[in-house]
Amino acid sequence: MELQAIGVQHPAVRQVQHIQNNTAPNRYKLFVAEGLWAHNMLLESGAPIDTFFWCPEAIYADEARKRAEEIAERAERSFRISPRTLEKISERDKPDGLLSLAALPRWEPRDLRFQRTALVLVADGVEIPGNLGTLIRSLDACAADCLVLTNRKTRLTHPKVIRASQGTILTVPTLEFETVEEACGWLASNRFTVLLADTDEAVNYRQADYGGRTALVVGSERYGIAKDWYGRGFQRVAVPMLGSGDSLNVSVSASVLLYEARARKSRW
Amino acid sequence: MELQAIGVQHPAVRQVQHIQNNTAPNRYKLFVAEGLWAHNMLLESGAPIDTFFWCPEAIYADEARKRAEEIAERAERSFRISPRTLEKISERDKPDGLLSLAALPRWEPRDLRFQRTALVLVADGVEIPGNLGTLIRSLDACAADCLVLTNRKTRLTHPKVIRASQGTILTVPTLEFETVEEACGWLASNRFTVLLADTDEAVNYRQADYGGRTALVVGSERYGIAKDWYGRGFQRVAVPMLGSGDSLNVSVSASVLLYEARARKSRW
Repeated sequence: MELQAIGVQHPAVRQVQHIQNNTAPNRYKLFVAEGLWAHNMLLESGAPIDTFFWCPEAIYADEARKRAEEIAERAERSFRISPRTLEKISERDKPDGLLSLAALPRWEPRDLRFQRTALVLVADGVEIPGNLGTLIRSLDACAADCLVLTNRKTRLTHPKVIRASQGTILTVPTLEFETVEEACGWLASNRFTVLLADTDEAVNYRQADYGGRTALVVGSERYGIAKDWYGRGFQRVAVPMLGSGDSLNVSVSASVLLYEARARKSRW
Repeated sequence: MELQAIGVQHPAVRQVQHIQNNTAPNRYKLFVAEGLWAHNMLLESGAPIDTFFWCPEAIYADEARKRAEEIAERAERSFRISPRTLEKISERDKPDGLLSLAALPRWEPRDLRFQRTALVLVADGVEIPGNLGTLIRSLDACAADCLVLTNRKTRLTHPKVIRASQGTILTVPTLEFETVEEACGWLASNRFTVLLADTDEAVNYRQADYGGRTALVVGSERYGIAKDWYGRGFQRVAVPMLGSGDSLNVSVSASVLLYEARARKSRW
């Protein structure tokens, strides 16, 4: 495979660094995919690949060479880079020669249609990228309809979000609303029953009603759900805390609630 | 408060570095506690404090000064260190002047007594410290009796285990067995029904039987449960995977199973 060779000063290499460090606008929601596993996921999902960087000296699996040709075929543009340049842009201990800029899919509220028993999760102010990615992985696993973000604190293109989602970020629809008001308006217009995950004045999550369309809201690791979500007549549901701690990890509590809702909707 | 001032060459400072980097034996299961939050947790739990390092120039909360005196009272030995020394041993961006070596509690199988509906989790080969800590936090939250470790890959004294456990590592009993054989012997002698979390040839976790004493087994992030656990007649239970991914994060799947068991045992 003959590709144009470029060095560290090339604008495409700089763009990778900007995306990794979040130091430039990223309107096309580009993210950095690295390694064989991530590239298999790109090929499977059909995600648009903007730029492919190939360093044949760094590969250590025959499969990588085969994939490289498929990726170069699919990418808008492809370059060859040296091991030294790869080292500059890789975030892995042992890079394997495949690195791409790819675009996350973009969903708009009007793209989504819901069945009678739809299930969505609202993540309000979640801060830790690994938690957000793990949440997306759980949404995929329980076949939830989408993730809604309000008071967003972490970008979906963060390498740790991509990694923790195990690639499911390419298939689970995500919507972001500027304000809680707008998110509530959209949920109401789609006839969702909203349940706030909160331990105060809450019903046990096993006793809550998951009939019809359900939107579960979880809050930030430090502050819980933003005030704006309260005073709107939404029921609060709690996963009982029976030990010395006063909360669960947010991706854990969301997943316990999501699977309860899924089980009840599916009559498992 | 007058404490002996020591520098970076002092053996106590070196000991902190050895524990952080796991470069020396650690038979007393010492771990590094840092910051106001962690020290409040040490004071509350009554954990033994071996060495306290105090850097008054670094504090930025009045509460820290008050706590420092309580900690010095409780610690076996206390030293004053300079901001420069603190920087060498701190793993935080903005250290707040409090750092201690404290000991994790040690439990032996004979220390534990179980009720008729006891619940334990076996973590077999879990590799990522954050996952292990999050598991311990969930065990505390659902009032499980203990964590059992087999094929241990990460040490409980790892800073990320401590952090993700949110301090619950000081109260949730943990037992480690050298072999799966020994763990199974101990579970059998305590009349536990063992359920393996596995998606192959498994029953839906909502249909499983959680009567009597239950031991749930979860496996490593990459390889699942070790072969040694199979062929012993244990039932397999699965959290259904309804999306494109083939697994959940291990602390998520364990928590969904643990709360299902807890809910069924408590008839929520």
